[in-house]
Amino acid sequence: MDKTVYIGLLGAGTVGSGVIEVLNKNASEIEARVGAPVKIKKVLVRDAKKVRDGLDKATVTDSFDDILNDKDISIVVEVMGGMNPAKDYMLRAFNAGKCVVTANKDVIAACGKELFDAAKKNSADLHFEASVGGGIPIITPLKQSLTANKITEIMGIVNGTTNYMLTKMTEVGADYDAVLKEAQEKGYAEANPSADVDGLDAARKAAILASLAFNTRISLDDVAVEGITKITPEDIAFARELGYVIKLLAVGKDIPSKGIDVRVHPVLLPASHPLSAVNGVFNAIFVRGNAIGEAMFYGPGAGSLPTASAVVADIIDTARDILYGAVGRIGCTCYNEKPLCPVEETESSYYVRLLVKDEPGALGNIATAFGKNGVSLKSVVQTTKAVKHKAEIVVITHLVKHKNILGTMELLNTLPVVDTIKNVIRVENEEC
Amino acid sequence: MDKTVYIGLLGAGTVGSGVIEVLNKNASEIEARVGAPVKIKKVLVRDAKKVRDGLDKATVTDSFDDILNDKDISIVVEVMGGMNPAKDYMLRAFNAGKCVVTANKDVIAACGKELFDAAKKNSADLHFEASVGGGIPIITPLKQSLTANKITEIMGIVNGTTNYMLTKMTEVGADYDAVLKEAQEKGYAEANPSADVDGLDAARKAAILASLAFNTRISLDDVAVEGITKITPEDIAFARELGYVIKLLAVGKDIPSKGIDVRVHPVLLPASHPLSAVNGVFNAIFVRGNAIGEAMFYGPGAGSLPTASAVVADIIDTARDILYGAVGRIGCTCYNEKPLCPVEETESSYYVRLLVKDEPGALGNIATAFGKNGVSLKSVVQTTKAVKHKAEIVVITHLVKHKNILGTMELLNTLPVVDTIKNVIRVENEEC
Repeated sequence: MDKTVYIGLLGAGTVGSGVIEVLNKNASEIEARVGAPVKIKKVLVRDAKKVRDGLDKATVTDSFDDILNDKDISIVVEVMGGMNPAKDYMLRAFNAGKCVVTANKDVIAACGKELFDAAKKNSADLHFEASVGGGIPIITPLKQSLTANKITEIMGIVNGTTNYMLTKMTEVGADYDAVLKEAQEKGYAEANPSADVDGLDAARKAAILASLAFNTRISLDDVAVEGITKITPEDIAFARELGYVIKLLAVGKDIPSKGIDVRVHPVLLPASHPLSAVNGVFNAIFVRGNAIGEAMFYGPGAGSLPTASAVVADIIDTARDILYGAVGRIGCTCYNEKPLCPVEETESSYYVRLLVKDEPGALGNIATAFGKNGVSLKSVVQTTKAVKHKAEIVVITHLVKHKNILGTMELLNTLPVVDTIKNVIRVENEEC
Repeated sequence: MDKTVYIGLLGAGTVGSGVIEVLNKNASEIEARVGAPVKIKKVLVRDAKKVRDGLDKATVTDSFDDILNDKDISIVVEVMGGMNPAKDYMLRAFNAGKCVVTANKDVIAACGKELFDAAKKNSADLHFEASVGGGIPIITPLKQSLTANKITEIMGIVNGTTNYMLTKMTEVGADYDAVLKEAQEKGYAEANPSADVDGLDAARKAAILASLAFNTRISLDDVAVEGITKITPEDIAFARELGYVIKLLAVGKDIPSKGIDVRVHPVLLPASHPLSAVNGVFNAIFVRGNAIGEAMFYGPGAGSLPTASAVVADIIDTARDILYGAVGRIGCTCYNEKPLCPVEETESSYYVRLLVKDEPGALGNIATAFGKNGVSLKSVVQTTKAVKHKAEIVVITHLVKHKNILGTMELLNTLPVVDTIKNVIRVENEEC
């Protein structure tokens, strides 16, 4: 009996061509691991006439129905990206009784529940390892390896473009615009870099990670987002002087009796934190659980073959479920309905950098403004180097509520001694 | 219908009490994840009369047969450690149709095949996530998340005791004996520290990791082992000066057309390598594959709750397989029979530290000895500070075969100018 598992691949771009390459070059290993051959039967492309490496012309089609109606195909692999028609194709695949593997963070972050409902209704597998962290195993570990834990915190460097930029700014002291230009020249950043530098790409991944970590559905709209455009070489230099590194993090926390706190923004991390050593285009996800303590998963966050590594692992997992009669074995894990914690109620330490008039009593006025809002200070650094007749003050606070920082900023803005509030950045994992 | 999954726990020591604690405190989360309650029905202990926290006295027994003959118990969880009776109990559990979860690196490294054969014969699950890296998910990622890859290299810091000691030696410049004493006082090292400092504990984990990474059975006897007892503060200082960190690593490589190279020994790692930042009792495993490139898994390598995190994750996986009728879904993955690469044929860069007579031409004589054995040098540092009329020479070689280094050492030993060969240490991942 032919046990071959046949795939219909949607998309033959960067990720799709990686999937084809991996399935070809590691075919014998994959067959041994699955217990049966895994083969691409059809590939959906925009232009069926274009010649593609490693792809038999007979497998190429420009009609999704060719895949949907092919009874041999049991797994639809969606690597075309974007919301539609990707989502529509996946829903139709489920309704046709096929399993789905996807790398699509947009659809999972916005419509995860709808997809999982369709998968469940049709007793099908839905896997999406490649949607966060490229090749890094993080979805399967969260759904299997860390299930003994109540997870309290998940933090990730999940956008390679911004991590590359911040790493460069840190290493060579370059400013934002210069580094963005370099990243664009190297192909790490798009011509329109907004999705990366404004944090939207990371926010989608934050929603997916938080949903898995806290077993409650978090959508893109639930994520508070801020990008890296306001980070300056001065902030990075001050952070370093104080023992911190600046990273764009996706942060999710399950705050007892308050709810889920999910956000994406630049943070100061202690230089000793494992995430602080994650540089360049690499990604990493850090997890804190009540049994394991802390764990971190590190690897390439993007790229054709690394992303294909995750997609093909999902294909293998699905093929094993199919051959073992166990499809749907691990479905949606959002069995909780936890409230969101209002952002004003979340707690952090903060880094605040101010330009003030260089006059006696300035520091006292500033410190009083923090105190009036119930914010106690961990450290204060004053320097007069910055601008003539101006001093720069950098403050690290103890743990405070976000609303108290907002109140402090409002008050500081009314003080004649304050020239400019240069930046306000959260400090994470202060105790590490 | 009662779908409760009942467990028989073998051992209530450090790991066993952690398993009990995690199953108790996270019971509702675990039930939601499995789709049924997971309960401990019986616990095998040496002294059934001793009172234990969180353990109903009625569940305690000092007879394995009580567990074996209990039809309700579908999963036997072995956390007693040691070869026997642990191995015997596991084999009997399989023959009684039960699944097994174990944390036992000794049995898996020495008798993995026997256990897997018994599991397969009885269509049962065998899981052993906790046998390597404590709480760190690495076995499941290797069996599922990285299956798209042909893995070419796996390197791990898998012994917390020695990593703590080397970290301390690096941070404060202390010598081996002082650091060992401190580790013993803190409970990180045993009164008889041999299994840790001589590398045997790491060698068991190396055998397990290599078996999984290369899909071929590697046993403890196949691993070349050297401990950390010869590492001095001088080696660490020289390494640092040259841009390296010294770590005890478990190393496995699949060398094309030669075979599998598995060893445990101290190595010099470039300071920029992700494993170099893994300090104290933390563990990490670094994997190189032909799709993902590189990935790293980081976390606590020991401890009651972290190890229980891995054991309970395996219990949950097994329970899901039982409830889904999919036991045996992923069995033994050693489907290859790859030869071992003779250690003389393996290739590395090497760090060599020599004490030589401080006389003209010394360096030339030394360099010639390397050259005669076909060893080319990457860098040479000479210092006269060490001992009166003696100079210290530190050499880093390019990539050479181990046999050429052995030949070089033989030749150096015959040279009048050489006082002592102080140390020879491999350099790994030089290109990173």
